[in-house]
Amino acid sequence: MRSALELARLGPVADPNPRVGAVIADAAGQVVGRGYHRGAGSPHAEVVALAEAGSAARGGTAVVTLEPCDHTGRTGPCSVALVDAGVAQVVYAQSDPNPMAAGGTARLRAAGVAVEAGPLADEAAALNRSWSFAVAAGRPRVVWKFAATLDGRSAAADGSSRWITGPAARADVHRLRAEAGAVLVGTGTVLADDPRLTVRGPDGTPVDRQPLRVVMGERDLPPRSRVLDGAAETWHARSRDPSTVLRQLFDRGIRRVWLEGGPTLAATFLADRLVDEVVAYLAPTLLGGGPPAVADLGTTTLGQALRLRLDEVTTLGPDLRVRATPTDGRGS
Amino acid sequence: MRSALELARLGPVADPNPRVGAVIADAAGQVVGRGYHRGAGSPHAEVVALAEAGSAARGGTAVVTLEPCDHTGRTGPCSVALVDAGVAQVVYAQSDPNPMAAGGTARLRAAGVAVEAGPLADEAAALNRSWSFAVAAGRPRVVWKFAATLDGRSAAADGSSRWITGPAARADVHRLRAEAGAVLVGTGTVLADDPRLTVRGPDGTPVDRQPLRVVMGERDLPPRSRVLDGAAETWHARSRDPSTVLRQLFDRGIRRVWLEGGPTLAATFLADRLVDEVVAYLAPTLLGGGPPAVADLGTTTLGQALRLRLDEVTTLGPDLRVRATPTDGRGS
Ligand SMILES: NC(=O)c1ccc[n+]([C@@H]2O[C@H](COP(=O)([O-])OP(=O)(O)OC[C@H]3O[C@@H](n4cnc5c(N)ncnc54)[C@H](OP(=O)(O)O)[C@@H]3O)[C@@H](O)[C@H]2O)c1
Ligand SMILES: NC(=O)c1ccc[n+]([C@@H]2O[C@H](COP(=O)([O-])OP(=O)(O)OC[C@H]3O[C@@H](n4cnc5c(N)ncnc54)[C@H](OP(=O)(O)O)[C@@H]3O)[C@@H](O)[C@H]2O)c1
Repeated sequence: MRSALELARLGPVADPNPRVGAVIADAAGQVVGRGYHRGAGSPHAEVVALAEAGSAARGGTAVVTLEPCDHTGRTGPCSVALVDAGVAQVVYAQSDPNPMAAGGTARLRAAGVAVEAGPLADEAAALNRSWSFAVAAGRPRVVWKFAATLDGRSAAADGSSRWITGPAARADVHRLRAEAGAVLVGTGTVLADDPRLTVRGPDGTPVDRQPLRVVMGERDLPPRSRVLDGAAETWHARSRDPSTVLRQLFDRGIRRVWLEGGPTLAATFLADRLVDEVVAYLAPTLLGGGPPAVADLGTTTLGQALRLRLDEVTTLGPDLRVRATPTDGRGS
Repeated sequence: MRSALELARLGPVADPNPRVGAVIADAAGQVVGRGYHRGAGSPHAEVVALAEAGSAARGGTAVVTLEPCDHTGRTGPCSVALVDAGVAQVVYAQSDPNPMAAGGTARLRAAGVAVEAGPLADEAAALNRSWSFAVAAGRPRVVWKFAATLDGRSAAADGSSRWITGPAARADVHRLRAEAGAVLVGTGTVLADDPRLTVRGPDGTPVDRQPLRVVMGERDLPPRSRVLDGAAETWHARSRDPSTVLRQLFDRGIRRVWLEGGPTLAATFLADRLVDEVVAYLAPTLLGGGPPAVADLGTTTLGQALRLRLDEVTTLGPDLRVRATPTDGRGS
């Protein structure tokens, strides 16, 4: 399973499909096939590994990081492929959270294949955290990023917000942006900052795969906005309804959304409980003025504050990165 | 010197005087006297150690954590005491930053005593950080504490601020309050929150030594305010001038001030560059409303932000404590 997980990691991180790795051993226990899923439209990991194994798979064992699918999509069901190849045993890590694809185990067992579930299940699930969440919830996982001063300002009084944090934090933003299927901002941020929203490498040049750029809001975007520069695909969602936009993004295959603000849009997502993770970049500066990192959430007393659980605190150059998860809801 | 530092640590931390330890060895190198300073009004460490050593000090060595004073205050100069005792050599760690007390080395050398300076000087200075700063600057060291949500709010819209942080952070506040000579707030905080501002132990009972409670501002305090409850001394400084109040506190022997806010008073101290350390307790909550942790600092652009250097980040239960030091001034 360790080897299968290593293979899975070779897959694309921001794909509509999960990252999956598979290893086939023959009846004598010799590894005869390896495969991983290269992303939507490519064959599944099991199919790649079976192709390498050929007839040696007969009577052998397939070790897969995710429960084999039973779903005829762009590729046929893997359960059928495994049965057809004469595999005697299947060991998988994570159960398939996708209601559309589940049922693989049942079909395998019905065909007389021994199925064992669960080794390194947590590790396998962590590999596809956003995908697992998204297929179960029917919407992408939303990670909200904000950059603020230690006193919680996301810009100065004149609107300047470049750069609140230093180069190390900004490089980290690009790294985490790259893991998302889409980067989302409100029209307000485009009108105020004219950001590019692309993923750029340390030398400033855009990387090959770019997340979809999404701008939410009813106002028109200036035709010369950088988000319309063609450096990556851009969708202007002329809507103010987070749920609708998220559903449309899910339908486009987006499993993780990197919500970059601004304060107004973030407040709406927070108030609607549509933020699944918070990544706060805090600069060791004090502004004592300027727009707050979070616009009005409708709270009046302390008990209504939105609670988070701190997951991780890291220093990035002079700055601090705090990762946190919203917990069950507001306080008592 | 290690033993002398251990002795120094036994002294009171929030005293007008520094913590000092002294060890006397006789001519043969045997330890014959030990002493530490128990605080203002008590004999200096050298005098205590010499008293224990008696005539055995003659021809011996005195190891002291701070340069012996040459100042006739409540006690006579230690330099004279060491010369009178016939000590042949003096080794000290930290040089005396106090212009009023310096000159001990010169007097010792003039009397033929060998003087060596510097071993563990940094460690000795760290022991008396606020005192060293204060005697050199002529004002107490100011540590500004604030508690805020991750989005920088110090209270909810209705003014409720109890409790933003959890019990571990609040216990830490009491621990750090206890290290200060005075706890300072504005009249606004007293009128809004009616805090006690005493140092209380884990069981809620006040500890023996209480810092001076100082309330700054021109408005009257309600006679039934908790700060007037007699549980500790309280000074209502009917002034809005931070420098004057700090000078008066220095003259009262206060070496460290624990500035607890509120936002208005803190902003004045920050704007006047009178904050020497920031201790921020950040709760993993979002309010999206309520007064900001820092009131108007007069900044308009990002370049005017007050810069800090992160010194330490600690988790306290669910909360985060960030210690930081204001750096040379505003950005470019
Ligand atoms: N520090 C940071 O991390 C960070 C990140 C981003 C932005 N910023 C700063 O934030 C400022 C812009 O703030 P902002 O609040 O105007 O930006 P925003 O949140 O990006 O945009 C707000 C706009 O989004 C539209 N919108 C879409 N869905 C909405 C909904 N459900 N509810 C309300 N509005 C919705 C509305 O415009 P329509 O009328 O077009 O619908 C609204 O005016 C800039 O100064 C920028 O520098 C800071
Ligand atoms: N989260 C925290 O860490 C924390 C800590 C403390 C307070 N708070 C919250 O802060 C709120 C109170 O805010 P606040 O800003 O009114 O409190 P504040 O800063 O304690 O008091 C402000 C008052 O101090 C006086 N003052 C003294 N020197 C001044 C100067 N140099 N400049 C301006 N004013 C000076 C003024 O009143 P006069 O007219 O009397 O001169 C002024 O109105 C409460 O809701 C409290 O809960 C939060």
